[in-house]
Amino acid sequence: MNILNLNDDVSLKRPLEGGNEAQLQTVREVLQAVREQGDAAVKAYTAKWDGIELDSLRVTQEEIDEAVAGFDPQLYADLEEAAANIRLYHEAQKRTGYEVPLQDGSYLAQRITPLDAVGLYVPGGTAAYPSSVLMNVIPAQVAGVERIVFVSPVSKDGKQPAAVLVAAHILGITEIYKIGGAQAIAALAYGTETIAPVDKITGPGNIFVALAKREVFGEVDIDMIAGPSEICVLADETGYADEIAADLLSQAEHDVMACAVLITTSDDLADAVAAEVEKQLQKLPREAIARKSIETFGRIYVAESMEQAIKAVNTLAPEHLEIITANAEADSQKIRHAGAIFLGRYSSEPVGDYFAGTNHVLPTNSTARFASGLNVDDFVKKTSVVYYTKETWAQNAPKIARLARMEGLEGHARAVEARGWKKGE
Amino acid sequence: MNILNLNDDVSLKRPLEGGNEAQLQTVREVLQAVREQGDAAVKAYTAKWDGIELDSLRVTQEEIDEAVAGFDPQLYADLEEAAANIRLYHEAQKRTGYEVPLQDGSYLAQRITPLDAVGLYVPGGTAAYPSSVLMNVIPAQVAGVERIVFVSPVSKDGKQPAAVLVAAHILGITEIYKIGGAQAIAALAYGTETIAPVDKITGPGNIFVALAKREVFGEVDIDMIAGPSEICVLADETGYADEIAADLLSQAEHDVMACAVLITTSDDLADAVAAEVEKQLQKLPREAIARKSIETFGRIYVAESMEQAIKAVNTLAPEHLEIITANAEADSQKIRHAGAIFLGRYSSEPVGDYFAGTNHVLPTNSTARFASGLNVDDFVKKTSVVYYTKETWAQNAPKIARLARMEGLEGHARAVEARGWKKGE
Repeated sequence: MNILNLNDDVSLKRPLEGGNEAQLQTVREVLQAVREQGDAAVKAYTAKWDGIELDSLRVTQEEIDEAVAGFDPQLYADLEEAAANIRLYHEAQKRTGYEVPLQDGSYLAQRITPLDAVGLYVPGGTAAYPSSVLMNVIPAQVAGVERIVFVSPVSKDGKQPAAVLVAAHILGITEIYKIGGAQAIAALAYGTETIAPVDKITGPGNIFVALAKREVFGEVDIDMIAGPSEICVLADETGYADEIAADLLSQAEHDVMACAVLITTSDDLADAVAAEVEKQLQKLPREAIARKSIETFGRIYVAESMEQAIKAVNTLAPEHLEIITANAEADSQKIRHAGAIFLGRYSSEPVGDYFAGTNHVLPTNSTARFASGLNVDDFVKKTSVVYYTKETWAQNAPKIARLARMEGLEGHARAVEARGWKKGE
Repeated sequence: MNILNLNDDVSLKRPLEGGNEAQLQTVREVLQAVREQGDAAVKAYTAKWDGIELDSLRVTQEEIDEAVAGFDPQLYADLEEAAANIRLYHEAQKRTGYEVPLQDGSYLAQRITPLDAVGLYVPGGTAAYPSSVLMNVIPAQVAGVERIVFVSPVSKDGKQPAAVLVAAHILGITEIYKIGGAQAIAALAYGTETIAPVDKITGPGNIFVALAKREVFGEVDIDMIAGPSEICVLADETGYADEIAADLLSQAEHDVMACAVLITTSDDLADAVAAEVEKQLQKLPREAIARKSIETFGRIYVAESMEQAIKAVNTLAPEHLEIITANAEADSQKIRHAGAIFLGRYSSEPVGDYFAGTNHVLPTNSTARFASGLNVDDFVKKTSVVYYTKETWAQNAPKIARLARMEGLEGHARAVEARGWKKGE
């Protein structure tokens, strides 16, 4: 792993996979076909790309029961406990709106309403992560979304991974469809004979899914298009090299485009982590992926001071930030930009991926400067309310009419003036 | 105005101006030039398109003072009062994050941090609305954003409209640049020698501005790309036709693509409003625009019941909803989808455009199903925090490692297991 002196040019940014023109054209064809032909188009594309002839799109209760019955009880309990932790953390995000009383009974208000229906995309095969099901569904449930739909492609055996069905079952999700790809996104956005449309689509997918989500955005809402994962570890001489190296590799094993960075004030730690990364890489099942990531994007920066190091973290705005320093809590208060912060050596980043309760859907590629991890706010909308009594109207109408006329909008002024006093009330 | 029986096929959706390939190509050229050449490119495009040779991009304090000195004192006071009302309403949206204590001093937390820097685009010429300045800037100020930059093109006289400078002055905004178009968006997103980059760009603009905002999204955040304005009036027999007609026209005068709809349970009101709209149209300064809007998109729907009417409103998900019924407050509680609600006959929609305190940047084109008006949340981001003590780690590490291995991510499991117990602590 390269060891560099820290300067101001640090960056996490990597080229994003934007898809090519041919892929976009394919996606647009699929979207149009599903919009026009509904289920028939969804089934045709599923046959073409997944190699599966579906009689019925929907997963039956028997299929869910079968997945649950064959599932490891200890893992089932682990998933249940993780779900409870995630629910506990997200419950505190629930909001109720507010009212601002004005004179005479007039008031302003903000009302919070959950979305009616949300669709979750779950990738198939080896990329099927039950933890993603928990992280995407629970904030929507806490928000109060009544209908949560789940789509995921099936393997050649016609089945979805048992673990994702189990995760859905634990959360009480029963509307599950055996479809994936752009056709699944189209079905969720536009609806078909069997699938009612949703208002928002979340969840990761391949480039066709990502392109389809971009295309239907506006028709429905989508979550962020997440980039490859990142970790930045901020450590001083109190850090243990083997632990930090393991944490760096836990991100690097995700994807060759993943990015793992250590920023430290300790020369010794920098050397030791570099050595540990190499040592642990050699024993890692996903060595090839992790090695490519480390070689391409992995960096160890040595800072002259904690102040300089923290400044660099704020420039990076990493998705995941571990702070393993003598004053981790105090140092964390100086962080302005990070998706998620893990404090101290016992808060290894995978703790948050699976179990602690915070969300693992987080802003990547330095977008933590302005974006947040998935949360309950993403599944509600806010409506403002204005109630003016006659008295409040009478007092303010001349001001409002003047402001409207200043902007050249006479119709606005007249609308306000059209009230009571024109009738001699 | 057409009077129709209400059925389930109501829709507010209109084709969105997406720009053509040539416009997109132009915008991409501008973005690249500004990215590479900074101020020089900004000045060159300003000379080319605005016909203005700028020595300095920034508005001087003298120019601001001059605009303020020549401004109508009553309008100044009106703007000040509107700003105070807007601040009052938005202050209640400010949030502080939370902490969830776990065992042993472990905890989870959510921290809320304002964005560092925000840029507001204000269109030039006749579309320069000081009310937009208030509506875009105040939520950012309440959020705690430290740097708020304001860009607006100049007219042939080299000046920006006095009213927008005055609005900026009232809010204490002093970093103002005399630039517009795609080059201004580029300068805000990438930065130049004189303009430091921002994290988010808000505010309306022409098609080049809208395309440029879409292109820089990801590099920075943007607000929604707002479509043409809409109003839906829900009224029973208690409504006054002249008032409702005036309110419909106040939206129709914005834009030929604007949409004004009345849904009523009263046949008599339907007829009376149709007649009033025609009568008032003939005297409206912006008659041509409003008439085109009314003819193309204006509709009066007669509903068989208030229940049916409310269902239709929820299908429309209008930007602005006026409820002028005998039980307006109770009826409003049944509305699930609307950008802003105005209750009763004295709460004419322009009250909210200018003065009441709620925001006038609202979701259009039925996106109120999932989107909200501009608010303080749009200018903060949320960071999650996990702090596990050794005890909490020890208790949960086996579960986390099992979940990671279930997903085939051995490196994640090892990272969690790399802690204390491997050292015999």
